[in-house]
Amino acid sequence: MPEVIYAPGKSPELVERLVAQLLQRTGRAIVSRPDPELHASLRRLYGESHELTGSWVLGIHDRARPVPSTGGRVGVITAGSSDIPYAQEALVVAQQMGCVTREVYDVGVAGLHRLFPPLRELLEEGVDSIVVAAGMDGALPSVVAGLVNVPVIGLPTSTGYGAGGGGVGALLSMLQSCSPGLAVVNIDNGVGAGSMAALIANKAAEARKEARE
Amino acid sequence: MPEVIYAPGKSPELVERLVAQLLQRTGRAIVSRPDPELHASLRRLYGESHELTGSWVLGIHDRARPVPSTGGRVGVITAGSSDIPYAQEALVVAQQMGCVTREVYDVGVAGLHRLFPPLRELLEEGVDSIVVAAGMDGALPSVVAGLVNVPVIGLPTSTGYGAGGGGVGALLSMLQSCSPGLAVVNIDNGVGAGSMAALIANKAAEARKEARE
Amino acid sequence: MPEVIYAPGKSPELVERLVAQLLQRTGRAIVSRPDPELHASLRRLYGESHELTGSWVLGIHDRARPVPSTGGRVGVITAGSSDIPYAQEALVVAQQMGCVTREVYDVGVAGLHRLFPPLRELLEEGVDSIVVAAGMDGALPSVVAGLVNVPVIGLPTSTGYGAGGGGVGALLSMLQSCSPGLAVVNIDNGVGAGSMAALIANKAAEARKEARE
Amino acid sequence: MPEVIYAPGKSPELVERLVAQLLQRTGRAIVSRPDPELHASLRRLYGESHELTGSWVLGIHDRARPVPSTGGRVGVITAGSSDIPYAQEALVVAQQMGCVTREVYDVGVAGLHRLFPPLRELLEEGVDSIVVAAGMDGALPSVVAGLVNVPVIGLPTSTGYGAGGGGVGALLSMLQSCSPGLAVVNIDNGVGAGSMAALIANKAAEARKEARE
Amino acid sequence: MPEVIYAPGKSPELVERLVAQLLQRTGRAIVSRPDPELHASLRRLYGESHELTGSWVLGIHDRARPVPSTGGRVGVITAGSSDIPYAQEALVVAQQMGCVTREVYDVGVAGLHRLFPPLRELLEEGVDSIVVAAGMDGALPSVVAGLVNVPVIGLPTSTGYGAGGGGVGALLSMLQSCSPGLAVVNIDNGVGAGSMAALIANKAAEARKEARE
Amino acid sequence: MPEVIYAPGKSPELVERLVAQLLQRTGRAIVSRPDPELHASLRRLYGESHELTGSWVLGIHDRARPVPSTGGRVGVITAGSSDIPYAQEALVVAQQMGCVTREVYDVGVAGLHRLFPPLRELLEEGVDSIVVAAGMDGALPSVVAGLVNVPVIGLPTSTGYGAGGGGVGALLSMLQSCSPGLAVVNIDNGVGAGSMAALIANKAAEARKEARE
Amino acid sequence: MPEVIYAPGKSPELVERLVAQLLQRTGRAIVSRPDPELHASLRRLYGESHELTGSWVLGIHDRARPVPSTGGRVGVITAGSSDIPYAQEALVVAQQMGCVTREVYDVGVAGLHRLFPPLRELLEEGVDSIVVAAGMDGALPSVVAGLVNVPVIGLPTSTGYGAGGGGVGALLSMLQSCSPGLAVVNIDNGVGAGSMAALIANKAAEARKEARE
Amino acid sequence: MPEVIYAPGKSPELVERLVAQLLQRTGRAIVSRPDPELHASLRRLYGESHELTGSWVLGIHDRARPVPSTGGRVGVITAGSSDIPYAQEALVVAQQMGCVTREVYDVGVAGLHRLFPPLRELLEEGVDSIVVAAGMDGALPSVVAGLVNVPVIGLPTSTGYGAGGGGVGALLSMLQSCSPGLAVVNIDNGVGAGSMAALIANKAAEARKEARE
Repeated sequence: MPEVIYAPGKSPELVERLVAQLLQRTGRAIVSRPDPELHASLRRLYGESHELTGSWVLGIHDRARPVPSTGGRVGVITAGSSDIPYAQEALVVAQQMGCVTREVYDVGVAGLHRLFPPLRELLEEGVDSIVVAAGMDGALPSVVAGLVNVPVIGLPTSTGYGAGGGGVGALLSMLQSCSPGLAVVNIDNGVGAGSMAALIANKAAEARKEARE
Repeated sequence: MPEVIYAPGKSPELVERLVAQLLQRTGRAIVSRPDPELHASLRRLYGESHELTGSWVLGIHDRARPVPSTGGRVGVITAGSSDIPYAQEALVVAQQMGCVTREVYDVGVAGLHRLFPPLRELLEEGVDSIVVAAGMDGALPSVVAGLVNVPVIGLPTSTGYGAGGGGVGALLSMLQSCSPGLAVVNIDNGVGAGSMAALIANKAAEARKEARE
Repeated sequence: MPEVIYAPGKSPELVERLVAQLLQRTGRAIVSRPDPELHASLRRLYGESHELTGSWVLGIHDRARPVPSTGGRVGVITAGSSDIPYAQEALVVAQQMGCVTREVYDVGVAGLHRLFPPLRELLEEGVDSIVVAAGMDGALPSVVAGLVNVPVIGLPTSTGYGAGGGGVGALLSMLQSCSPGLAVVNIDNGVGAGSMAALIANKAAEARKEARE
Repeated sequence: MPEVIYAPGKSPELVERLVAQLLQRTGRAIVSRPDPELHASLRRLYGESHELTGSWVLGIHDRARPVPSTGGRVGVITAGSSDIPYAQEALVVAQQMGCVTREVYDVGVAGLHRLFPPLRELLEEGVDSIVVAAGMDGALPSVVAGLVNVPVIGLPTSTGYGAGGGGVGALLSMLQSCSPGLAVVNIDNGVGAGSMAALIANKAAEARKEARE
Repeated sequence: MPEVIYAPGKSPELVERLVAQLLQRTGRAIVSRPDPELHASLRRLYGESHELTGSWVLGIHDRARPVPSTGGRVGVITAGSSDIPYAQEALVVAQQMGCVTREVYDVGVAGLHRLFPPLRELLEEGVDSIVVAAGMDGALPSVVAGLVNVPVIGLPTSTGYGAGGGGVGALLSMLQSCSPGLAVVNIDNGVGAGSMAALIANKAAEARKEARE
Repeated sequence: MPEVIYAPGKSPELVERLVAQLLQRTGRAIVSRPDPELHASLRRLYGESHELTGSWVLGIHDRARPVPSTGGRVGVITAGSSDIPYAQEALVVAQQMGCVTREVYDVGVAGLHRLFPPLRELLEEGVDSIVVAAGMDGALPSVVAGLVNVPVIGLPTSTGYGAGGGGVGALLSMLQSCSPGLAVVNIDNGVGAGSMAALIANKAAEARKEARE
Repeated sequence: MPEVIYAPGKSPELVERLVAQLLQRTGRAIVSRPDPELHASLRRLYGESHELTGSWVLGIHDRARPVPSTGGRVGVITAGSSDIPYAQEALVVAQQMGCVTREVYDVGVAGLHRLFPPLRELLEEGVDSIVVAAGMDGALPSVVAGLVNVPVIGLPTSTGYGAGGGGVGALLSMLQSCSPGLAVVNIDNGVGAGSMAALIANKAAEARKEARE
Repeated sequence: MPEVIYAPGKSPELVERLVAQLLQRTGRAIVSRPDPELHASLRRLYGESHELTGSWVLGIHDRARPVPSTGGRVGVITAGSSDIPYAQEALVVAQQMGCVTREVYDVGVAGLHRLFPPLRELLEEGVDSIVVAAGMDGALPSVVAGLVNVPVIGLPTSTGYGAGGGGVGALLSMLQSCSPGLAVVNIDNGVGAGSMAALIANKAAEARKEARE
């Protein structure tokens, strides 16, 4: 399980030191929500020797010590564009756990027709699990879990204001879903969603591998 | 606006007296949630001379004094079968306000494919407003309002248990919806939803009539 | 349905680019809550060639491509002066959906006598729907819906502190109303209230037009 | 301050014994929410020798030891008919604290025109304080306190279901009121509202008396 | 009823203009929560010709047009020192409504012995009503209302953090009190508490005066 | 730590079998909330050979195998009479943990003068810890912890209705207390309060004993 | 996905008819929470020709049409004995989805030593996913997910009273967990937990099978 | 009981003056959450003549007037590193109440194996009471209280976001615990936890001392 450094509230020096320690020990690090300066500084420090993925969340890993690919396949879908940062957190965690990932953004229920084509593609690629991030009404995970036969992780996000805002309405709507094969993590917990999705995918991938051997 | 007699907690005699008064004064009455005995007794009393509609909610009106048809057209959709009683409340209120009504039941988001054909029919019939009743995840009104160009009244119902149960998750999800043209009433408030939908429909029908004259 | 650009948290350059794109594509744009600099800058850019309405919310549209008037008529009422910004959001959305609008400000229930004359005027002008914005006690929509025979959209606003503050008390009071013909949107959701009101008004206006033809 | 015996959950024998003790010690007793049998039994026991007031709440006092009239004047107003039992609790407590009381029932904001004439009468009679009981939207106390120059006690009642039901919406709306001269007691706390109103009225009456002497 | 200008979020120029208008129209003004600069500036502007009271809340009135003394007597008690600003709001409002006021600070239930002597003094001075401000546990108003025979207004304040913080625990504890003669206003609503207390006191004072004449 | 059998929802036979097992194994048993029949039946079965304490909660122990006295001393105080059942739970648990107990009932803050004499007695008897049970406003534990230098366990009880009812207001008020030396257990958790108080008292008693040896 | 018939509130005849229809159509049925009579009656009807599993939840399937074994392996753990009914729901659903199941009961965190041996056994048996049911403090899923490398579904149950009772504290504690590889379903939603766990297990089993072929 | 000066929101001069007064009067002072400048300034002022402990919370006491050692022994455990500041508050308070303290940091339930060795050491050192600080899932105090026979004070901390964030989930989980011998203080209330733990420890120490004499 990769460790995640939450940048806000930490000095750039502290984050850089923690990153250096992690990279030395494990060859990889995840920095959550670096500000633009820190982001640039980390790119300067590691951009040549390491692979860097993501922006809001920055995954760094040593090209010399690549994350062993597990063969797990994780899909990530968002309802809106403000859900993308949290989805990225899930993506980067899943990647660093060795999974291949595939994302589909901005296909919320207010315009449902945009959902069907990319969802079909995800299924054809054989994803082992799907993270669905949605704030506000939180309706998308219910819709997706009703359409597919793959475990779905609902990731409510803190978008939206007023009653049920900050992700509360989204979380409750997901908990109330009657679509089978749907479990949830807490609001904005992209790390938790990514680790659960990757663990599921890696279980399946491991089984594929074991049986093959 | 028709008056509604809420039966639970009232003696059958009291309800029957209130019904008699209302019928005499206005020629119509709505009895909400009569138990089977009261239901049978009211059918015995009025079944021949009056038109009776609904079961969980019983609309009674004097055939001799028909509700003047306004030409308003109200559609009512439910996500599940446990939402039907509340939808009926809206239907009976809208009927007694002179509207033609059309209902579509049990087309929730866990099986979205069942929604599209009847929704298309509703639109082809030219409904002026639509009540969408949903409990649990409350996702259906967002989906419908995203698909149609007709004012939608979200009616959350008190189905579901646990966190967000009793209609709370459904209400919050509807309030958080980003589909335009959606407003909500309180949990289980079928009377409110029906009166709002009928008022909207009657405004449109009135305009049709006025212009025609 | 017009698109709304929420300015806070976006750079002036980004907002200006989004506005330019929208204007080119649709001939109109709504900028919600621009700060004074952005406001001035947009006025400089478009003030001559376009019509600009509102301040807290800025509606911009190309004089060369006027919004086709639908003939829908929307009234907007506020309880206090701190509700005005949210009411403006509704007004600008309704205007860009082709409606004629009419506003009445600062007629809350703590001084009820101020309500009656302007409400009578609104009715005489034949509004098709009314948005009533109120924070704190949220009592005004109940009072208005009890007095008129027109669909009312309750718009709770986030004024007020302490228990029930931030619009919660206002929202709950509106949901609990027993006045018929009242539905609500979420706290501060002026865009939702405006789109619902305009959709209702346009349904009626369309009916008036159709019948006339 | 009179003592109140809350009947539900107590055996009829226990209530009767407590009543007998109170009557002997103080010459008066209040029994809250007796069921019909207990009510009848208490009427049988004391109906001839004592004065009995109210039904849902039963005030009993010894004609031989009349409550000394203080000259305080308390008005009690309810929004709906389901608020009456709680209003009665306030009335009976105020009467047993020596006040003259005057009640006005069923004048809620959904039909505001019914409020003005009886409110004017109350003021002409010179009430020293007014209890306003309202459930659901809880809007009436704000309206009343905005119209009069007399201390108002808001008494939220547990009517209404769904979000804000059980008196929560009513309480919050009253707490959020910006009408001056309004304070509240808890949901259904008719005893608290009555004791506060009577204490205020008795302060004023005492002052009238002192100054006269 | 004096008007209160809430300073935070308003420019100093706007506040000064509003103050000038109020002073011209009514001879008095209340400025709530001015920052030190605004405070100093108002003192400079009016310090010679007007009487200025309070600091966190600033009451200003024209010496040439003194508030007519009503003879009402209002006591104000606080549990802790962080409740004082809200208590001041009540004091200044009551003073501008013509009452004589008397305050007692920092006598909370964690050190109950400090309460008794000043409370006895308040009673000996014949206060007509008492505002009791308390945050955190909110226990003081219950204790005071149990000890005196004068109407008590509970004023919960937003001190305290964690569960029940921000005044919620204090408000609920006051609403749950079984001490008679206690009603409450919302959290931090010193203006509401002061206006209620002054209205009660002025009723009594008016009665004293009328009877005397 | 003694085991507690919660009787409601269990058949009398089941409770009796569980009691018999516990008595055989440990020589003691606690039955929480037996109904009158079960109570009588248990008294019949064990009344001669065992010591039975309490009524709402029934402590049974074998005279032949007495609970070894630890010398710990636990005081239990209640604010009202409806708090007594929960206080009894704490008492019986503490007794079966070997403590000497002493109770003081019905000394709530609405009549504070009744508190001081019995509290002084408790202290003179040298109690090692005090459980203070209070519902509604929950103010008593704050008052007691402010007066004594002994660890206090606040036990909120589910008395009271309306906002903050069911013990919520009491719990929050206790959590907000600024009296030092006060910790709380959950609403109605008399078993938890009793076990904490007895553990504290037994620590002290053990120290007294050890040092003596 | 097997269908579940929720028995409470349905007549025995209705349940029996629904069971018969389901058995005919799919060869299997799940009846949730039958009362003892219904339970006995179903056993009488199907006990010879069908396999019946569980008691609180009754799984029925036609021996002639066995559920095809998928090879998926699901573990179910409960913290207390009152969590067992909900765990059974998950077990029966997983079994009818073709999984082999293994349960471990009553190993909550108040006696942690009981957890380790059976958990080790579960892991040695190679479970593909684990449902952990816990009410009250809800701590067990966090502990288990911290110890194993298998996807864990937290199932909060509605045991416990007072603040955080009815499963709320358990749900929130699970959502707050920082153990990776943990997602949750709603309170008491054994069906949802079972379907998610079985879907995960079946994904892995399918992979094992595919690769083998 | 030592007094605690809460630094945020106070000017450095004010804090320094309060510290000087306290030191003169009692020989000790606690400053909660000083910023780095204030911290440095206090170290400069008192670092030579006084003993200074802690950083986030700064305990200062006059070497010339040492806190008399009571012999009480308090253990403090934290689940994570973000709980340390609150734990420090408890430590410093307990030290200034004369207790010997011992802390164990960062042994949360997501990695349970780290807990056992230091817990065993604490017990071998004979601590009289243990404060367990935990945010997020709040599971640690339940686990510890289930393993030891010493009174445990649960200290929930405001770490964690989303549903149950800010310490709410932690507090509820602790209140729901079925481990005996556990009571809680409010979220982040390190002062309350420390004073309760020290009072318990001092009771035991006092008993040890008394008996010895």
